[in-house]
Amino acid sequence: MFKKVRGWFVSSPPRALTIGFIVIILIGTVLLKLPVSLREGQSIDWVDALFTSASATCVTGLVVLDTGTSFSTFGHWVILALVQIGGLGFMTMGTLFAIFLRRKVSLKERLILQESLNQNNLEGIIKLVLRVIYYALTIELAGSLLFTLRFMLDMPPGKAIYFGIFHGVSIFNNAGFDLFGDYRSMANYISDPFVNLLSIVLIILGGLGFVVLADLVEYRRNRRLSLHSKVAIYTTLLLFIGGAVVILLFEYTNQKTFGPLNMADKIMASLLHSMTPRSAGISTIDVASLRQATQFLLVILMFIGVSPGSTGGGIKTTTFAVLIVAVLAVFRGRKDVVLLRHRIEPDRVYKAITVTLFSFIIVVVGTMLLSVTESHSFMVVLFEATSAFATVGLSAGLTPELTDIGKFIVIVLMFMGRLGPFTLFYAVGPRKGKTLYRHAEGKIIIG
Amino acid sequence: MFKKVRGWFVSSPPRALTIGFIVIILIGTVLLKLPVSLREGQSIDWVDALFTSASATCVTGLVVLDTGTSFSTFGHWVILALVQIGGLGFMTMGTLFAIFLRRKVSLKERLILQESLNQNNLEGIIKLVLRVIYYALTIELAGSLLFTLRFMLDMPPGKAIYFGIFHGVSIFNNAGFDLFGDYRSMANYISDPFVNLLSIVLIILGGLGFVVLADLVEYRRNRRLSLHSKVAIYTTLLLFIGGAVVILLFEYTNQKTFGPLNMADKIMASLLHSMTPRSAGISTIDVASLRQATQFLLVILMFIGVSPGSTGGGIKTTTFAVLIVAVLAVFRGRKDVVLLRHRIEPDRVYKAITVTLFSFIIVVVGTMLLSVTESHSFMVVLFEATSAFATVGLSAGLTPELTDIGKFIVIVLMFMGRLGPFTLFYAVGPRKGKTLYRHAEGKIIIG
Ligand SMILES: [K+]
Ligand SMILES: [K+]
Repeated sequence: MFKKVRGWFVSSPPRALTIGFIVIILIGTVLLKLPVSLREGQSIDWVDALFTSASATCVTGLVVLDTGTSFSTFGHWVILALVQIGGLGFMTMGTLFAIFLRRKVSLKERLILQESLNQNNLEGIIKLVLRVIYYALTIELAGSLLFTLRFMLDMPPGKAIYFGIFHGVSIFNNAGFDLFGDYRSMANYISDPFVNLLSIVLIILGGLGFVVLADLVEYRRNRRLSLHSKVAIYTTLLLFIGGAVVILLFEYTNQKTFGPLNMADKIMASLLHSMTPRSAGISTIDVASLRQATQFLLVILMFIGVSPGSTGGGIKTTTFAVLIVAVLAVFRGRKDVVLLRHRIEPDRVYKAITVTLFSFIIVVVGTMLLSVTESHSFMVVLFEATSAFATVGLSAGLTPELTDIGKFIVIVLMFMGRLGPFTLFYAVGPRKGKTLYRHAEGKIIIG
Repeated sequence: MFKKVRGWFVSSPPRALTIGFIVIILIGTVLLKLPVSLREGQSIDWVDALFTSASATCVTGLVVLDTGTSFSTFGHWVILALVQIGGLGFMTMGTLFAIFLRRKVSLKERLILQESLNQNNLEGIIKLVLRVIYYALTIELAGSLLFTLRFMLDMPPGKAIYFGIFHGVSIFNNAGFDLFGDYRSMANYISDPFVNLLSIVLIILGGLGFVVLADLVEYRRNRRLSLHSKVAIYTTLLLFIGGAVVILLFEYTNQKTFGPLNMADKIMASLLHSMTPRSAGISTIDVASLRQATQFLLVILMFIGVSPGSTGGGIKTTTFAVLIVAVLAVFRGRKDVVLLRHRIEPDRVYKAITVTLFSFIIVVVGTMLLSVTESHSFMVVLFEATSAFATVGLSAGLTPELTDIGKFIVIVLMFMGRLGPFTLFYAVGPRKGKTLYRHAEGKIIIG
C-alpha cells in the first residue's frame, strides 16, 4: 500500500509537488485553527485558517487577520515554519531529512527535486539542494541577527530576538508577513535607513534565486557569471532603479504618502516600494493611499516578479528579458533572438510566451471573478488578484474585507501562482507529446 | 523641389504613410474648425477639432463633442470623408486617383500601397487595391441602402437617406461615429433585430479585412480558403460567441443594462456588445453602466481587435491565435508551433510577441499618463486608453470630460494604434538590419 502510493507519487514529480503543497497547507490550516495558535480572546474561522496557511505556504503574505495581534507566539512559529517550508520548497526539506536519515536518494526522488527547483540538469541536484539550504540558512541567520540588533533599540532583548528571527526569515523568503500589527507592515520604520536597506538586500538575495546565488558565491573562483545569472541580475537592477524613479515622480507631491517626507526618505521609500512588489510584500506606506498610476506600476512590477528558482513569484525576470529581446530582434529585422551575445532558441521564447500568457489569463480571470464577488473598485481588485498570483502580499485594502468566495478565489490564485503553469499543467496532464511529422509552413499575416 | 519631396516620400513607405495620415488629420482639423462645419450657435476649440479629425481619420469614434448635435451637415460629410479615407487607407485612395488620371503606377508607389495594406507579396497589389475599393463600396452601398429603408420608418425620406449613408459607411469602417445625438449611440435601436443584425454583419465584414473578403468571394471558384482567412474567421467567431455568452452571464441581472430586457433582446444585446469592442465602437446600452467584470472583458476584446488589413485595430485575431497555439505547443511538448495543420515559423511567432508586447506597453503607458492627468477611476481610464489605441471608440464616460492634456494623450494613442508598431518604427528607424554572424546558443531558465 505504502509502496503503491509512493510509486504513484514519484511517477509524476509535478503531481507529487502539487499534492505535497496541498497537504502542507491543510496541516497548517489545522494547526492555525487550534486555540493555542491564537491570542487570548481571539477566534478564527476555518476559511481564515486555510487562507493564512495557504498565504504562508505560498510565501504570499496576504492576511485576513493581522498576524501580530491575532496569533499567539505558537501561531507565529507555525506561520514561520510554513513560510520556511514553502520558501525552500518542501522537496528540499524532504531531501534534508532523507540525507539525515542516511537513506539513499533515488533517481526518481531527484527528479522530484529537479521539478521543485525548476532546474534543467539532473547532475549535481543533490549538491545544489544542500547548498540551497546552506545559503538560505546563512542569509536568514545574518538577516535575523542584524534585525535583532536593530530591534533591541526599540524593545526588550527577548522580543527583539523573536522579531529579528521572524522578519529575517519572512523577508528573505519574500513572504510578506510581519508582526508589527494593525496591517501596517513596516510603517514605523519608514525613515530608518538600516531597516530599509537590510530589507532591500534580503529581498534581492531571496528573489535572485539559488542558482544565481551559487553563481555569485563561485564568482571569486570562476571569474565569470552564467548568462542566466547576468540576465537575472541586470533585469532585477534595471526594474529596481527604473521603478524607483517613476514611483518618486508619481508620489513626490502625494500628501498621503511621500509628501511629508524629506528628500532622503522619499528616495529610500521609492527604492523600497520599487523592490517590494517583486515579490516581498512588505511596505512602509499605505498602498491604498498611493496614486492610481503608482498602483498600476506596482501591478506591472508584481506581474514581472523575481527570478526563477527563488522564493518569489511572477512571470520572472528572465521571461521578461527574453520577450523584450524577441521584440528588439523583430524591430531590427534579425532572424535570431539574441540576449547578451547569446542566441535564444525558439523553444525558450515559446516558453516565455506560455508563462506570460498563462499568467496573464489567470490574473484576468481572477480579477473578473473577484469583480463579480467583491464590491470594490477595479484597481483594488486587479491589485489583489495580481498580488495573490505573483505571491507578493501587498494589498490595496481588499484582503481583510474579502467575502468567503473571494477568499477561496484568492487562495486558488496564490496556489496557482506558487506552483506555476508547468507544474500545474503536468500535474493533471500528460508529460510530453511526440511529434509524428512536421506540418508544412503556413503563411499568416500578423499585426 | 517637388521631385525631391516625392523621392523622399517613396524612399520610405512607412514614413510616407505616417506623414500622409498627419496631413489628412490636419486638413480635417481646419475643415472642422470652420463655422460652416458646426450647427448654429455651436463653437469648437482647436484641440477639439484636432481630436475629432484624428478620431475620424483613425476610424476610432471617440467624441469630445456629440457628432449629431454639435456638427452641421457639412461637418458630418467632413467626418464621413475622413472615416472613408482612414478606413480604406489614403494610399488606396491615392491609387484610385492615379488610375483615374491614367498615370502609371510605379513600383515605388506600389511599395507604399503594400505597406498601407499590410500585404507581403507585391504582385497583384494594384488589382487588390481596386478590389478593396470595389468590395468596400459595394458593402457600404448595400449597408447604406438597408439602413435607409429601416430609417424611413422613423424619419422623413431625405433624412433617412442621409442617416442611412452615414451609418452604413461609419459602421462598415468600424468608425464608431453616429448621428443619433447625446452620446447615446444606437440606444434607440436596442430591441430592433434588423438594425442589430445589419450592424453586426457590417462590423464583421469590415473587421475581417480585405484579404479575407477577397478569399470569401473567390471561394465559389477556388473551393478553399487560405490559412490566414480560416484563422481570421474562426478566431472572430469564437471570440464573438464566447464573448456574448460571458456578457449575457455578467449582465443578466444588471437593472441598468440588460435587466429590463426580454430574453431575445438580452441575447441580441450580448451579441452586439461582444462584436462592437472589436473595434466598431457603436453601442445600444450605456457602457458606463456595465458591471466592472463586463467592462474588463470589453477591454480584453478591444485589445485583441479585428483581423489584419481591415478597418479596425487591436493586436489582431491572427496575432492572438498564433500566441495561443504557441502556448499549446509548449504544453504539448512539441517543437513546432502548429495552427490548423500548418507550421508557424519562429519569425512569425516573434512578430506576434512584438505586436502584443508593443501594444501592451503603449496601453499601459497611456493608462498611467491618463491616470495622472485625469481624476477618474482606474477602469474608466484603462477603458479609454484601450479604446483609443485599438481604435474602438467605446467610452465609459471619460472622453467628453478629458482635460486638454488628456485629449492629446488620447489623440496620440489613436494615431499609434491606427498605424501600428511596424509602420511607426520604420517611419523613424532603419528598414532592416543585417545579421553578421550567429551567436552561440544561450541557456536560460524561463518561468
Ligand atoms: K510575498
Ligand atoms: K471604431
